[in-house]
Amino acid sequence: MSNAKTAITPRAQDHNQWYQDIIVAADLAENAPVRGTMIIKPYGYAIWEKMIAELDRLIKAQGAANAYFPLFIPESFLKKEAEHVKGFSPELAVVTHGGGQVLAEPLVVRPTSETIIYDAFSRWIGSYRDLPLLINQWANVVRWELRPRLFLRTTEFLWQEGHTAHATPAEARRYALKILRKVYVPFVEHSLGIHVMSGEKSESEKFAGAKTTFCIESLMQDGKSLQMGTSHDLADHFAKSFNVRYLNDAGQLTYVHSTSWGVSTRLIGGLILSHSDDKGLVLPPRIAPHQVVVVPVVTDAADAAFTAAKKLAKSFPKSYGTIFDERMNLRAGEKFFEWEKKGVPIRIELGPRDLAANVCVVVRRDTGEKMTVLLGDVKAKVKQLLAEIQTNLFERTKVRVDGQSVTADTWEAFVAAIEKGGYVRAFWCERSECEASVKERTKAVTRCLPFDAPVEANDRPICVVCGKPAKRKKRWIFAKAY
Amino acid sequence: MSNAKTAITPRAQDHNQWYQDIIVAADLAENAPVRGTMIIKPYGYAIWEKMIAELDRLIKAQGAANAYFPLFIPESFLKKEAEHVKGFSPELAVVTHGGGQVLAEPLVVRPTSETIIYDAFSRWIGSYRDLPLLINQWANVVRWELRPRLFLRTTEFLWQEGHTAHATPAEARRYALKILRKVYVPFVEHSLGIHVMSGEKSESEKFAGAKTTFCIESLMQDGKSLQMGTSHDLADHFAKSFNVRYLNDAGQLTYVHSTSWGVSTRLIGGLILSHSDDKGLVLPPRIAPHQVVVVPVVTDAADAAFTAAKKLAKSFPKSYGTIFDERMNLRAGEKFFEWEKKGVPIRIELGPRDLAANVCVVVRRDTGEKMTVLLGDVKAKVKQLLAEIQTNLFERTKVRVDGQSVTADTWEAFVAAIEKGGYVRAFWCERSECEASVKERTKAVTRCLPFDAPVEANDRPICVVCGKPAKRKKRWIFAKAY
Repeated sequence: MSNAKTAITPRAQDHNQWYQDIIVAADLAENAPVRGTMIIKPYGYAIWEKMIAELDRLIKAQGAANAYFPLFIPESFLKKEAEHVKGFSPELAVVTHGGGQVLAEPLVVRPTSETIIYDAFSRWIGSYRDLPLLINQWANVVRWELRPRLFLRTTEFLWQEGHTAHATPAEARRYALKILRKVYVPFVEHSLGIHVMSGEKSESEKFAGAKTTFCIESLMQDGKSLQMGTSHDLADHFAKSFNVRYLNDAGQLTYVHSTSWGVSTRLIGGLILSHSDDKGLVLPPRIAPHQVVVVPVVTDAADAAFTAAKKLAKSFPKSYGTIFDERMNLRAGEKFFEWEKKGVPIRIELGPRDLAANVCVVVRRDTGEKMTVLLGDVKAKVKQLLAEIQTNLFERTKVRVDGQSVTADTWEAFVAAIEKGGYVRAFWCERSECEASVKERTKAVTRCLPFDAPVEANDRPICVVCGKPAKRKKRWIFAKAY
Repeated sequence: MSNAKTAITPRAQDHNQWYQDIIVAADLAENAPVRGTMIIKPYGYAIWEKMIAELDRLIKAQGAANAYFPLFIPESFLKKEAEHVKGFSPELAVVTHGGGQVLAEPLVVRPTSETIIYDAFSRWIGSYRDLPLLINQWANVVRWELRPRLFLRTTEFLWQEGHTAHATPAEARRYALKILRKVYVPFVEHSLGIHVMSGEKSESEKFAGAKTTFCIESLMQDGKSLQMGTSHDLADHFAKSFNVRYLNDAGQLTYVHSTSWGVSTRLIGGLILSHSDDKGLVLPPRIAPHQVVVVPVVTDAADAAFTAAKKLAKSFPKSYGTIFDERMNLRAGEKFFEWEKKGVPIRIELGPRDLAANVCVVVRRDTGEKMTVLLGDVKAKVKQLLAEIQTNLFERTKVRVDGQSVTADTWEAFVAAIEKGGYVRAFWCERSECEASVKERTKAVTRCLPFDAPVEANDRPICVVCGKPAKRKKRWIFAKAY
């Protein structure tokens, strides 16, 4: 597939354009004909497949089983949970015609599946023996998007959504937190190589219908925060709306307590924004479809260096997905440029002079470092470098967060800090008026109350906006956000 | 999840009810609130996941890469290929409202993705170097269904749809056939253990927009045929509608030739109809989420036989997905009954007396055969039995087809044969009037002209309906169908 446009606008010049250029240059996705929808191209989808494989493994390890619920939800279902319908109504796509007829009841294209799933749970759950019920689904969902951006905000996106029912409030809350701690945090940090902060959302930012929303947030290179995933403690809200009850061991009918949680193709947006540079995409090895590319630097495929390069490519473990770039219609330099844009973690160059010297050149995508390595050592060296690159990318994002997190105890300090970008820690009265005021005056929003926020020694903490007493002795995180 | 209803209506008594009962008893799926839509429950979805894994591997081995195209297609796109829109119009679900607004152009929920994909191909393909372009996607599609049946005909279903573009007509046709021969036939026969017949569809049965539709058909236990998958040679039909052209090596702009091909969750319906018996589902080992279940026959979990059974369950290779059924609230007999209904290929029973004799009881799901096996021999025995069960299930379907395929050269013989069920081989003039007449008078339809249909020695073959000369010297297959 040809991409006429290959130049990448520098980050410093135009961050938005840089993001779009990276996507084009790496051939990840493009806008589709219906505004807000997206075509995920093969290389972008290959990254998503790597994500699915690892997330699916982690989710199953928490006991959840995959299932599939329908795309179409009767409009009346959404109305059963008051907060839920209020939150989602402005974003719905509605089917009014089916099979050539006007439908008696319009159908909503799922924006999320709580309503249709709790309706099923009301049939599936009878006794305490049916609990916990732990379900996940991989699906597409639709939320009408007025300001679409590839991967970050699209009218249709792909995701997993987990839905679980439990016997007690405490168990539901524990499971919602477990998904965050055992699935989302390790996945984003370990596989995507991106530092995350986890915590609790404010009332205004929580999921429509949840008691509490937990989230993971990551700081992007431009100092804005990106919500990477959420996990909701739904208490008995949906259970009450859909009459999901069980007979407890004392023989009483009791509402279940439930959770829902999801991450989406937005994670690809986070991956791009976190690691890419002005040369293109940078992929952490664990999520790279191809961890290594071997480029023979020859003008003739009959050259011994071509054969040696091919043999070298084949010598790596299958899990690397190594590419041997044997195209003869491109110069080696063009190939280097292409794989750099696609973010392949390690490039190996092998030409006749290298072969004569029994070496090859190994290039790291994350640092650009070039090394001459003996052919006999290259397997071990690549293994070591892949581990180093994975660690290095994560460490970079950690350093970024550490360097861009400040505490502000006055409005002036707060505004100045928000202007600079990054995370600002501040006390807050937790009234929505102050939250709205921050948004209006600085464009920043609450991101979360981090789990690890210390109880501050300050014994009269006051809201950074209104000066009234803060609700808790812990500082919230504020930032501009995607 | 509790299933109150567990009784299975015998096949001989009511085949339709039997099919539904199997699905309930094995807890595979259920009808969803919107008529025609379906919830695929965890056990049903686990079977689908096994199918996806193997199909995906086979598809990638043919060079196709996965991608993802949007759910919503502008209505105008469908109208660009005249045959296509004619075929799909009656089945469309249409979105008329989005984000609280009436849409300027209604959106079609994809019934299949040719139109949106060829629109993209027109941007992606420039030169012969971009060919062949081999794409697959795993997705949900919607086709309004007036007579829904779980898995077999649902308004929404899950499938893979491949879409490829080639430089020449011959190459496109070759690839469409390759998918049938290298992916669909081996998958259905080898993994699902179901004999298939492959061939070419008649004009009236081919895909709306195709030049030629190739298909695989399997004969179910009730003597009806089920279309298991199709692969279409689209020639340049969609290329012309969407202006998909490439510069050939002589520098001329040339239309591509394309293919599309798909199999869906309907395969689960075929799996149920092919192998199940009056006791429940029967799964071929290669597609069974759990190939072995080990049931300790004890009344006390402290019994040594419980521990021995657990140890035995753990000794099998991970790929078996062995279940150790340690529930103490059910009697062993109830457990046997449950796993039988779920079609687990091999059940192992181990009680105190077995342990004392150093044996266990091994039961085959396909034949019901019970064997007493020395504990030291059980691993080898199970391995051998799994292979035998896989082969046996396939052989049964082959015997069924052989026993229910007859040749009919007169209308009377044809009607009698159709009445009996199974495949009827007959000459046909290939005029749609005769095909329609067969359907009206016998409810049978053409299934395909099999690839392996011999050129008959009969040198004046005549149409079994009208008596006029047959178009070819090969016999078509007619049958009642799902």
